[in-house]
Amino acid sequence: MARPSLRISLLDAGLKVMSRKGYVGSGVREIAAEAAAPQGSFTNHFRSKEAFAREVLDRYFEHVKAMMARTLGDKSRSPRERLRAYLDLITTRLGADKFTRGCLIGDFSLEAALQSVVLRDRLAAIFAEWQVPFADCIAEAQAAGELDATFAATDLAEFLLASWEGAILRMKVARNAEPLERFKRIAFATIFKEPR
Amino acid sequence: MARPSLRISLLDAGLKVMSRKGYVGSGVREIAAEAAAPQGSFTNHFRSKEAFAREVLDRYFEHVKAMMARTLGDKSRSPRERLRAYLDLITTRLGADKFTRGCLIGDFSLEAALQSVVLRDRLAAIFAEWQVPFADCIAEAQAAGELDATFAATDLAEFLLASWEGAILRMKVARNAEPLERFKRIAFATIFKEPR
Repeated sequence: MARPSLRISLLDAGLKVMSRKGYVGSGVREIAAEAAAPQGSFTNHFRSKEAFAREVLDRYFEHVKAMMARTLGDKSRSPRERLRAYLDLITTRLGADKFTRGCLIGDFSLEAALQSVVLRDRLAAIFAEWQVPFADCIAEAQAAGELDATFAATDLAEFLLASWEGAILRMKVARNAEPLERFKRIAFATIFKEPR
Repeated sequence: MARPSLRISLLDAGLKVMSRKGYVGSGVREIAAEAAAPQGSFTNHFRSKEAFAREVLDRYFEHVKAMMARTLGDKSRSPRERLRAYLDLITTRLGADKFTRGCLIGDFSLEAALQSVVLRDRLAAIFAEWQVPFADCIAEAQAAGELDATFAATDLAEFLLASWEGAILRMKVARNAEPLERFKRIAFATIFKEPR
């Protein structure tokens, strides 16, 4: 039977290599080498690179959900402050990688979505699930008078997540926090400002 | 001497293939095949895949600049309307590809920027140049009282371009215009709204 630990090592290595080289550019050989695993082990554990990438993406999204739980789920803060706390936490995490790595969901959206129906469908499902806790938090802020209620909470949540991916994209070229900080500075003084 | 027409064919093919497969995933063989050119012709015309990709990117940016000239340069419209006209023109162009292709500058920012210092430096220069006509247009709108002047025009220009790349990213998964339309609907009613 295939060793489960090797499976996890391969998935961890997959996240590293695919964050660096994208879906198309990542070879099974390189992923196995990164995991210090024999190349044959890959095919013991995964049906295809596509199936593997889907699992890498799912594990990444679990990680994102944990960060959402830590921030959006923190009832000691007001709902508007929780939104800000999420973006601040992500900023810190991206800074730990010196702003060279972005978000695998964004990376795959630009590249893998065109290559694989399986991955595109999974990305669409992830985006649909991702915006829910944001929309809930925004709706709570709107109900509390902390945010303007002109737009539906789901629209604002989609806008926030998409625009934030754009800020991360810009960060990968700048290699510093400024695009992220600019986004927060402007967004929280306009779209997500407290009504007077 | 190498035929100039073949050089252009290779560059055109490069844009097609790299829009589909990214920088890492695009092979010289595939690009030559797309251009119906012998593979050896690539090395006659280009020093490396990196040098080639830089030229593909430059040609793409020239195309973007032409679209900026058509819209941001249209003095028959108010400056705020010109910003909107640019986003509307891009929306139409992306729709012509059924929302499957995005923006090469955004694609390369997420993927190629990590692989190549040459491409990352070029992308940084492109972003620096790209925001100028937007900042000018925003400053003109601010001076005319058409836009709020709380934030510097350059900051708003960077915010607009980065967030728009995020909307395009989201569009590539959704395969429809909704993320683009949502962006315009919210941005022009908040950050880029007319002050009362």
